Amino acid sequence: MSIESLSEFEKNREKGNKLILENADRQMKRLFHIDGEVYKEGTLSSKNKELLGLVSSLVLRCDDCISYHIVQCKKEAVTIEELMETLTIGYTVGGSITVPHIRRALIRWNQLEKE
Amino acid sequence: MSIESLSEFEKNREKGNKLILENADRQMKRLFHIDGEVYKEGTLSSKNKELLGLVSSLVLRCDDCISYHIVQCKKEAVTIEELMETLTIGYTVGGSITVPHIRRALIRWNQLEKE
Amino acid sequence: MSIESLSEFEKNREKGNKLILENADRQMKRLFHIDGEVYKEGTLSSKNKELLGLVSSLVLRCDDCISYHIVQCKKEAVTIEELMETLTIGYTVGGSITVPHIRRALIRWNQLEKE
Amino acid sequence: MSIESLSEFEKNREKGNKLILENADRQMKRLFHIDGEVYKEGTLSSKNKELLGLVSSLVLRCDDCISYHIVQCKKEAVTIEELMETLTIGYTVGGSITVPHIRRALIRWNQLEKE
Amino acid sequence: MSIESLSEFEKNREKGNKLILENADRQMKRLFHIDGEVYKEGTLSSKNKELLGLVSSLVLRCDDCISYHIVQCKKEAVTIEELMETLTIGYTVGGSITVPHIRRALIRWNQLEKE
Amino acid sequence: MSIESLSEFEKNREKGNKLILENADRQMKRLFHIDGEVYKEGTLSSKNKELLGLVSSLVLRCDDCISYHIVQCKKEAVTIEELMETLTIGYTVGGSITVPHIRRALIRWNQLEKE
Repeated sequence: MSIESLSEFEKNREKGNKLILENADRQMKRLFHIDGEVYKEGTLSSKNKELLGLVSSLVLRCDDCISYHIVQCKKEAVTIEELMETLTIGYTVGGSITVPHIRRALIRWNQLEKE
Repeated sequence: MSIESLSEFEKNREKGNKLILENADRQMKRLFHIDGEVYKEGTLSSKNKELLGLVSSLVLRCDDCISYHIVQCKKEAVTIEELMETLTIGYTVGGSITVPHIRRALIRWNQLEKE
Repeated sequence: MSIESLSEFEKNREKGNKLILENADRQMKRLFHIDGEVYKEGTLSSKNKELLGLVSSLVLRCDDCISYHIVQCKKEAVTIEELMETLTIGYTVGGSITVPHIRRALIRWNQLEKE
Repeated sequence: MSIESLSEFEKNREKGNKLILENADRQMKRLFHIDGEVYKEGTLSSKNKELLGLVSSLVLRCDDCISYHIVQCKKEAVTIEELMETLTIGYTVGGSITVPHIRRALIRWNQLEKE
Repeated sequence: MSIESLSEFEKNREKGNKLILENADRQMKRLFHIDGEVYKEGTLSSKNKELLGLVSSLVLRCDDCISYHIVQCKKEAVTIEELMETLTIGYTVGGSITVPHIRRALIRWNQLEKE
Repeated sequence: MSIESLSEFEKNREKGNKLILENADRQMKRLFHIDGEVYKEGTLSSKNKELLGLVSSLVLRCDDCISYHIVQCKKEAVTIEELMETLTIGYTVGGSITVPHIRRALIRWNQLEKE
């Protein structure tokens, strides 16, 4: 499977998020809000939290979630070495079934490098 | 990830189903047949059964299955409020990893509204 | 695998919940609270919501979650026919890997019948 | 987690299967029947089919299903070398999260050797 | 969801693999190497090992992994009957949630037949 | 479900690991070795790597893996605040289906505090 360009990814994401916010009941709105809160600086740095979000998304194998955290990792100045060590843990825990997602994670990372 | 149009979705589905029926051994044919039976009116209404199928597909995160049940929900006159409460339960149980699928579920629902 | 008695299940659950509430940070407390809210009567009845929770727990194969929803289903006066139709949908969607959980769901249901 | 003895495993399994057969609706009965059919000799030998069932159960991480297929593999005269190669493929595909299940698979296998 | 052509699949795969090999740390390189080793002829034939890889990929529902093993199965002279029996076991164990992947597996198989 | 005592957990783990090492083929031995390597100090600290292992185990819902990483986290001087933030991310990503595992994670943590 190929992945869409970064701008297409962002556009699809926003289109979907808009539909969620327009239609969500009260509890869904709260869940959605919490998603934005848990990666903020706490006892753990927001960088480390993004890596936790990334590895969770990798072992659960969700490309959109991985793409989102890759973008955030870049904003948090994660290095390629840190990225690879995180992906290696996901690969070890989650097995070779994660490899196609690692491929797409690195393609996304590369797109960001070229911006 | 973007999702294909409704007609493309239906076309791909039919193409694949045709290949299944042409090649399936006896047990696969039976499994395939049961899939069509379990959502029929029983002690539970077919509407409630479709919602059960939808939430199962959401927590297992299969876009094609979600699309299929969204189409069926529409036929069963599910309201947007009922849809959202069902998706909220899936989101609660299955976590934020389901969000990209909720986005695409609502985009699919919207396509049906416009038909 | 065998399952513990109903009273042991409840005791372990409470012990764990107490530890969660004593230690949870703000966001975890909110998530925990939402879990209690989403099954309440809404556009969908609380009975139908419990069935949605049950089928989600079955296809994701979590015995403790299944036990919890089985207890709630009993309180909501779910009949054995409604229970079986719900479990059949879970079995269809989730496959034979759910069967050990269906076994334990019915053992739990039976314990409740005898109370 | 420890695993129960072989006789306890068989007893729990039968108790649960009895409840399924007593309560199952028509479609569940058919699914249950198919489960018994698909591992029978076909173009593929029943031995190879049991290995397919075993590796599926391992990557989906269901101890009861693994125990069942381990027992069947023994009946089909699977050797320890064949068993290990099958488990290695499951470990490779499914990652280290499968390791606790490999431990219990080998403990079960050992119980069967001693019978 | 539709699947890309065989040449596009191969191209995306190679592009991603190149990025993995350029950036991988030592442990990831080793994991990647092992992935190539475990399907080689051993006590079990490489044909049977490919079927084990295929069924694992099916129940874990990874289209790219399925496509890869379908291509390998073809090289190992797997017949359509053997393929279908393997997919039927995956469908039985993993449920109807695997059906969209079976559709795409058969479309991929068909593309290979026409080459 | 209750969890066994710490000493029982360690004993079962060792018994299983012994069986793995006695029977493992070459590739399984290598996978097993890599599991021990990836959490070692690198660009990321071993503490952060343990948290990555913990959150992966939580969202994939493996009690034995969680127990193992909880023990390691304690050795790495992870604080209760850091633990809770990590579990909150797992809960957010993986949903309420992770709650029974969070309960048992905290019971395990408590056992370690009392040692």
